[in-house]
Amino acid sequence: MTTSTQLTPVKWEGDALILLDQTKLPVETIYLELTTSEEVWASIRHLQVRGAPAIGMAAAYGLYLGIRNSEATTFEAFWSDVSKQAEYLGSSRPTAVNLFWAIDRIKARVQQDADKSVAELKAAVLDEALAIQKEDAEVCRTIGEHLLTLLEDGMGILTHCNPGALATAAYGTATAPLYLAKERGWDLKVYADETRPVLQGARLTAFELQQAGIDVTLICDNMAAMVMSQGKVQAVIVGTDRVAANGDVANKIGTYGVAVLAKAHGIPFYVAAPLSSIDMETPTGADIPIEERPGEEITHGLGKQVAPDDIKVYNPAFDVTPAPYITAIVTETGIYKPEEIGKSKS
Amino acid sequence: MTTSTQLTPVKWEGDALILLDQTKLPVETIYLELTTSEEVWASIRHLQVRGAPAIGMAAAYGLYLGIRNSEATTFEAFWSDVSKQAEYLGSSRPTAVNLFWAIDRIKARVQQDADKSVAELKAAVLDEALAIQKEDAEVCRTIGEHLLTLLEDGMGILTHCNPGALATAAYGTATAPLYLAKERGWDLKVYADETRPVLQGARLTAFELQQAGIDVTLICDNMAAMVMSQGKVQAVIVGTDRVAANGDVANKIGTYGVAVLAKAHGIPFYVAAPLSSIDMETPTGADIPIEERPGEEITHGLGKQVAPDDIKVYNPAFDVTPAPYITAIVTETGIYKPEEIGKSKS
Repeated sequence: MTTSTQLTPVKWEGDALILLDQTKLPVETIYLELTTSEEVWASIRHLQVRGAPAIGMAAAYGLYLGIRNSEATTFEAFWSDVSKQAEYLGSSRPTAVNLFWAIDRIKARVQQDADKSVAELKAAVLDEALAIQKEDAEVCRTIGEHLLTLLEDGMGILTHCNPGALATAAYGTATAPLYLAKERGWDLKVYADETRPVLQGARLTAFELQQAGIDVTLICDNMAAMVMSQGKVQAVIVGTDRVAANGDVANKIGTYGVAVLAKAHGIPFYVAAPLSSIDMETPTGADIPIEERPGEEITHGLGKQVAPDDIKVYNPAFDVTPAPYITAIVTETGIYKPEEIGKSKS
Repeated sequence: MTTSTQLTPVKWEGDALILLDQTKLPVETIYLELTTSEEVWASIRHLQVRGAPAIGMAAAYGLYLGIRNSEATTFEAFWSDVSKQAEYLGSSRPTAVNLFWAIDRIKARVQQDADKSVAELKAAVLDEALAIQKEDAEVCRTIGEHLLTLLEDGMGILTHCNPGALATAAYGTATAPLYLAKERGWDLKVYADETRPVLQGARLTAFELQQAGIDVTLICDNMAAMVMSQGKVQAVIVGTDRVAANGDVANKIGTYGVAVLAKAHGIPFYVAAPLSSIDMETPTGADIPIEERPGEEITHGLGKQVAPDDIKVYNPAFDVTPAPYITAIVTETGIYKPEEIGKSKS
């Protein structure tokens, strides 16, 4: 599914998992060849793979690597091996919801195929892992196609954080229309917020779009307002960590500010949201807990100390953009007004 | 004039210039004792002193250090020494307008006292340097007193960049009311934007306010919107590099975005502006040239490379906040609506 120009963070090739080491980006592009579940465990733990869908895929392939040499001859013995590997891989990053979702999906597939031989079960595990990746790429591509209907050749697009191919099977979410536009020969001009404090925009988004030959300009977060006032931006597209039932959107810190600025400048603000991120059990954005992260990310995160010792720091990892600031939320099922996001799942 | 809690970037003490080495901040607080104009030249060149007023003061004291051992016995010979030193010190940072303003002021004083002895002229040079510093402190303190009438005990204040004591004789401009409030026992809660790319907020503003015992919290620029939406900020105060005749304000990049966010949240936005920064010859903000600086400030400026090689970068050093976003501009002569800023000089 991927285009030739895209970086692929997780790929099954031959009989190994090929993983782009994201801790080395953007200075070095190094692919790791992983052949054991221990190696996959370490790659997840050490953030060599990041982004919810990509972590889920890596764990799924890791599970296959962990059982492919199983000497079990009965379903019960094989199931015991699968369960042990699932628990082991889950311990690599216990807060990664998508990791458990992927592992649970593979376990369900094994249970469903319980009447098959161990050899067939092993093949089923790999098949399911490949299916997870294929479906994620399709979801992203479909979101991108919907978003593309809202854009035009020649537009300037501003994005924030890394809702990109590097976090998914392919295309990314908010970046999907940018890759599709490139495939069609459109000339979009992308502005990537560097996204303090962890700089996903500078390190990852700018990198992957540059690699794909897309016209991307890196700016500091505090330059977005000026770029908008200069008429350089015709649409903002961001990803999301969670969409509440009322259409409020949680995403990387800074997203809310960009939305306020977009509204003030009359620029449409679009959210790319796979159905898996839409949480109808959460009534509003106020019900989404906001993680606060260590101050050191701000004071020491970039190679040297840039703030005084013992300075008080406020470092929320996410913010909530209220529905009225959002022009549309785009899922794999279509384009929705934020207050009608419930229709996306029906 | 300075309060005991304030850091003083430039100070004449005994017969030496005591300079806070700002290149070592915020990790080390090192005061240099400079006794020759060559040392002052180097300190300006190497950015150990920064901020327009502070550079001007340092150059003024440097001029005194350069002529105090002059062996001239006639006015003509002394004037030749003064002129040589003035030219020499001016070469330390040729773009610093305030440096030339301070040197020219001292030269005018020497000309004015032309009938006096060389010993008296030397004393006049030091006297003028001290007067420059005293007047700058008075301007800042007066701006602070006017701003304080717009604030109340207990408020949250957001600021951007370093419009602080470290750039001036004392008090700073936008920080002046914060120091005065501290003197009066008020409990303000200050949020300092780190101010990418050069991090003046993190390195300097957070540092000097912390040193003064003021309650300051460091945030990334992209967190200002969230802090505002949480009701934590009741006023924004910023400094300025130049105010145009129509009340448009040029200031450090990111200021315009903060102004848009403040307006969207119903928060007043104040600009602290010494009369020297008000330029009635510049009709509007559109007539203010905006310096673009090297992309490396964004991609490499913090100790390690954080963006890919050869990435396109847009790095404007300043932006312009249009008058309609500004609640008031506060000078040493009072509080003005931006469109009436012309009255401040009459």
